Amino acid sequence: MAEILSALRSLMASHSPPLHALIVPSEDYHQSEYVSDRDKRREFVSGFTGSAGLALITKDEARLWTDGRYFLQAMQQLSDQWQLMRIGEDPSVDSWISDNLPREAAIGVDPWCVSVDTAQRWERAFAKNQQKLIQTSSNLVDEVWKNQPPAETNPVIVHPLEFAGRSVAEKLKDLREKLAIERARGIIITALDEVAWLYNIRGSDVSYCPVVHAFAIVTLNSAFLYVDKRKVSSKVSSSIQENGIEVREYGAVSSDVALLASNQLDKDTGLSSGRNDVCETGTCEAEENNNDLIWVDPASCCYALFSKLDAKKMLLQQSPLALAKALKNPVELDGLRNAHIRDGAAVVQYLVWLDKQACNDAISLSNAQMQEIYGASGYFLEGKGASKKRSRETMKLTEVTASDKLEGFRATKEHFRGLSFPTISSVGPNAAVIHYSPQPETCAELDPDSIYLFDSGAQYLDGTTDITRTVHFGKPSEHEKACFTSVLKGHIALGNARFPNGTNGHALDILARIPLWRYGLDYRHGTGHGIGSYLNVHEDGNFGIRLENVLVIKEADTEFNFGDKGYLSFEHITWAPYQIKLIDLSLLTPEEIEWLNTYHSKCREILAPSMDKNELDWLKKATEPVSA
Amino acid sequence: MAEILSALRSLMASHSPPLHALIVPSEDYHQSEYVSDRDKRREFVSGFTGSAGLALITKDEARLWTDGRYFLQAMQQLSDQWQLMRIGEDPSVDSWISDNLPREAAIGVDPWCVSVDTAQRWERAFAKNQQKLIQTSSNLVDEVWKNQPPAETNPVIVHPLEFAGRSVAEKLKDLREKLAIERARGIIITALDEVAWLYNIRGSDVSYCPVVHAFAIVTLNSAFLYVDKRKVSSKVSSSIQENGIEVREYGAVSSDVALLASNQLDKDTGLSSGRNDVCETGTCEAEENNNDLIWVDPASCCYALFSKLDAKKMLLQQSPLALAKALKNPVELDGLRNAHIRDGAAVVQYLVWLDKQACNDAISLSNAQMQEIYGASGYFLEGKGASKKRSRETMKLTEVTASDKLEGFRATKEHFRGLSFPTISSVGPNAAVIHYSPQPETCAELDPDSIYLFDSGAQYLDGTTDITRTVHFGKPSEHEKACFTSVLKGHIALGNARFPNGTNGHALDILARIPLWRYGLDYRHGTGHGIGSYLNVHEDGNFGIRLENVLVIKEADTEFNFGDKGYLSFEHITWAPYQIKLIDLSLLTPEEIEWLNTYHSKCREILAPSMDKNELDWLKKATEPVSA
Repeated sequence: MAEILSALRSLMASHSPPLHALIVPSEDYHQSEYVSDRDKRREFVSGFTGSAGLALITKDEARLWTDGRYFLQAMQQLSDQWQLMRIGEDPSVDSWISDNLPREAAIGVDPWCVSVDTAQRWERAFAKNQQKLIQTSSNLVDEVWKNQPPAETNPVIVHPLEFAGRSVAEKLKDLREKLAIERARGIIITALDEVAWLYNIRGSDVSYCPVVHAFAIVTLNSAFLYVDKRKVSSKVSSSIQENGIEVREYGAVSSDVALLASNQLDKDTGLSSGRNDVCETGTCEAEENNNDLIWVDPASCCYALFSKLDAKKMLLQQSPLALAKALKNPVELDGLRNAHIRDGAAVVQYLVWLDKQACNDAISLSNAQMQEIYGASGYFLEGKGASKKRSRETMKLTEVTASDKLEGFRATKEHFRGLSFPTISSVGPNAAVIHYSPQPETCAELDPDSIYLFDSGAQYLDGTTDITRTVHFGKPSEHEKACFTSVLKGHIALGNARFPNGTNGHALDILARIPLWRYGLDYRHGTGHGIGSYLNVHEDGNFGIRLENVLVIKEADTEFNFGDKGYLSFEHITWAPYQIKLIDLSLLTPEEIEWLNTYHSKCREILAPSMDKNELDWLKKATEPVSA
Repeated sequence: MAEILSALRSLMASHSPPLHALIVPSEDYHQSEYVSDRDKRREFVSGFTGSAGLALITKDEARLWTDGRYFLQAMQQLSDQWQLMRIGEDPSVDSWISDNLPREAAIGVDPWCVSVDTAQRWERAFAKNQQKLIQTSSNLVDEVWKNQPPAETNPVIVHPLEFAGRSVAEKLKDLREKLAIERARGIIITALDEVAWLYNIRGSDVSYCPVVHAFAIVTLNSAFLYVDKRKVSSKVSSSIQENGIEVREYGAVSSDVALLASNQLDKDTGLSSGRNDVCETGTCEAEENNNDLIWVDPASCCYALFSKLDAKKMLLQQSPLALAKALKNPVELDGLRNAHIRDGAAVVQYLVWLDKQACNDAISLSNAQMQEIYGASGYFLEGKGASKKRSRETMKLTEVTASDKLEGFRATKEHFRGLSFPTISSVGPNAAVIHYSPQPETCAELDPDSIYLFDSGAQYLDGTTDITRTVHFGKPSEHEKACFTSVLKGHIALGNARFPNGTNGHALDILARIPLWRYGLDYRHGTGHGIGSYLNVHEDGNFGIRLENVLVIKEADTEFNFGDKGYLSFEHITWAPYQIKLIDLSLLTPEEIEWLNTYHSKCREILAPSMDKNELDWLKKATEPVSA
């Protein structure tokens, strides 16, 4: 680790101009949340493996900024040379630089790895102290990274219409209509899931995200895909070209953006610039202004491509594909519901299996104790397995072996394509590490006296899933039950909310927190996030609560419609029981108990066809109605 | 009305430069919510009497923008020449101007009547179409207003320390510490309640707000009060000067701000500019930058004063007095609690009186009907008065006579100084007009078949009050009960919330709406507002819900303290019962019923000492415990 820092500091000193500091962001050229191994530059320099963070290397310091999800993990992983900066508590990276680095300092960053928004925010902060953000001409981390993995050459596959629900031609038509409305003649698409969604293609360049490393440019007349051509078979290439998309090499995006800026990229350029020539007398200024903008999403487009455009002819605004992709079409919605039924079945099969292990473990307890601990009011019931003797030496049940088992159950399901993010499988204190990822060598064993949390999801051809359940193998304490019940109350309150059109997620967020705040408890992350359709599991970069269902927003059937806005509500599409023994039923209102019983009865009804007899018996017991 | 518009249009045409449009805001020179009669310019030109709104007059149009509280009222009051623009539904005034007035249009406004924030927002919007905001050199409305009331000459009074709780010397010391921290050498204070609070003075220049038309400037060494000197008796003047405050004429603020900008206002100017002279070699740039800023609150300072300052040496930031004034000191808090007890007693006495009138009205009903309607589960019980015959001709009970009666009860209380805003006393459909102000000639009679809403408050020397209760004189419908119960549920949920330090009001707002949203109901205004201490009833310009209590924020006694932020909760200090017969008890949770019973029992306990025997009997019945 020390050698990496000193090698980087040498490069910083010999850079022109010499750099006082180097910023190493977590993101790849596409501002992705999850990146390929080759792009894990921030992890390589710092040793911190979390998905979000930013490294800053100065002549004599190294600091890592990360958010509340990762404070504990970063403390464990960072070496002495690194100092942890807690986002929300410590100064932000830009104000730290502005306040601590010398006047006129040069701060370097690879402009491909930083978004327009972020780079501009830094520049404004640095200007206070006459500091400058320097775009390095190459990536300095790549230069010192001897064993950097090569670029992937995984094949591009076509995502069929039966799952996509809307053709590329239709999506391009919608997009061009939005360009025309905004007077844009072209758009640069850099977010990997937007490229995949628009062109109905998928890949496997990034673990957990079925995307392809690619850029796209769409103009009013043309459409381009920039991708390593080795990944595109001739059959796939034909299919793409049939949709009027021209396939070009990944690296060509840079020069093509420059051509786009000077209006030379489009097939119809000749005609268009001809018209402009006629207008140079200044008599048709209005027409010249029409459709002359290039649309760039400042949150996802890298600073490198942005810098090739004319600032005056740019539309800096959220990509229209973000909303189009978020609004699932009927085929995608059906797929999402079906994928969640298969996924729920796998989760229940995992719980049944865990229950059996727990009962094996309970051999040393008396029948009365077992009844108390594994009683019929929750998971982990007394079962046949309880009479078998388990050898601790040969069967070690750890966070990793357990989560492998869960993956195994999912892998048997139709359309399964892999996990949607690294499974979080955590026992006791590890469950407090919000993005904890257990490692085979160091992970904990499952423990009958501890909370066990698993947060996991899968990619299916017809949809992406993400679910969290928290369970206890033994007898939970009153405190554990009070905390669990508070989280459940928030989960129910949010899921049951009705709200007018235009209400944003921030406004609803408090509904999940109020029951926790009552005890002075809280959590350091947002409450909800969007989810892709066989795409990224996080469509907005936030993280989920620890009881996590996927909800579809639908029109609410309200008696009135004040303000004519339309009222909305949620439909739960995740199906897996909550562990009753973790609930302090006396803290639930009659409405909450009714909701719980209704949800559990639907779980039974919907999952029954996927269960064998043993599993169904378990499910019936786990979902028996409760009362206060 | 037509003559006013044509007179204004003549002045607009002869203005240099000629104006395409004139904006007439509601605000006075101090950006006040409530203004004196002389300052009701927007009301004078448009006829619309609501407290918030903006008039725009072009060559051939006149438009009035106002918010959801006033849509119904504005529709009733505006003549045919005026078009209502609904804030939140129609385009904002700046985008309407930018989109509808010609390129390079000149839009005039009196720069004393518009805040820096607003003027700058308009300028940015106008720039899109090369339009310009023109500061008129005089107020054009004043020029056409023949019978404009003269400026007030009401006396300034000193607000004694026994009510203020903190001396002027202490407040000035706190303020100067904040100036030093922000490197400011002076601050311009334009908000009337901030001037009154800082200097511990009160007045009666504006109905309902015990403030004085005045500006203040405070520097590190000096303090100035700009006020019509006719208002200041020699005794009051001595008291003010003892605190080191120099009293100057109201109009002198303009030239003094210019002197402040050039560092010539302060008593120690000679010394200070001497130091600057020495530094002109450039060797002590850092020292020159120190304490060289002038603090201006862009939300409250008028554009006229702002324009006299050097933009580079300005600290545009919320006034430190806004927060200082909002954080009530212990003396103010005790005063506020005591004032609310006296005020609650007056409200209950009013309810007892209303009850008696309702019973008088019920003479034609059978005993069984009366029992059903005025049954012991709510207000308006069957009483002795029921046997008396009422003559409709001689006793007309209207919105106005009723609210006069309420004022009468308040006027008997210690420290009473007047109402804190125009009483909203509204029957049936009028209750939907959020800021309805009944007029003697046109107001409705109280009606046994309708909802009656009263939202009112008073100024007491030790505190300002604001309370809303909604009642029914007869038998409420199921729908009325469902709506009332939803509002009550939101009222309880918000009042019972615990939340971490740093949580803002917007985040809590949803708690009051969720029970309404369930039915597709909502309201078109914010949920809460700050309240002054014998000062303005609205410290943040928003409006209250229709069951309205005053709450004090205090530390919550939570079991944990996640994130070390400290957790907060509310203390109710308003005491008056809710009408039980309007509540559908089956919709309340056990916790809500417990809260209601506890609140009612506290009402009884706290108000009993202020009640006579009759009133106490009534109160005991009205606050009897209920169950689901």
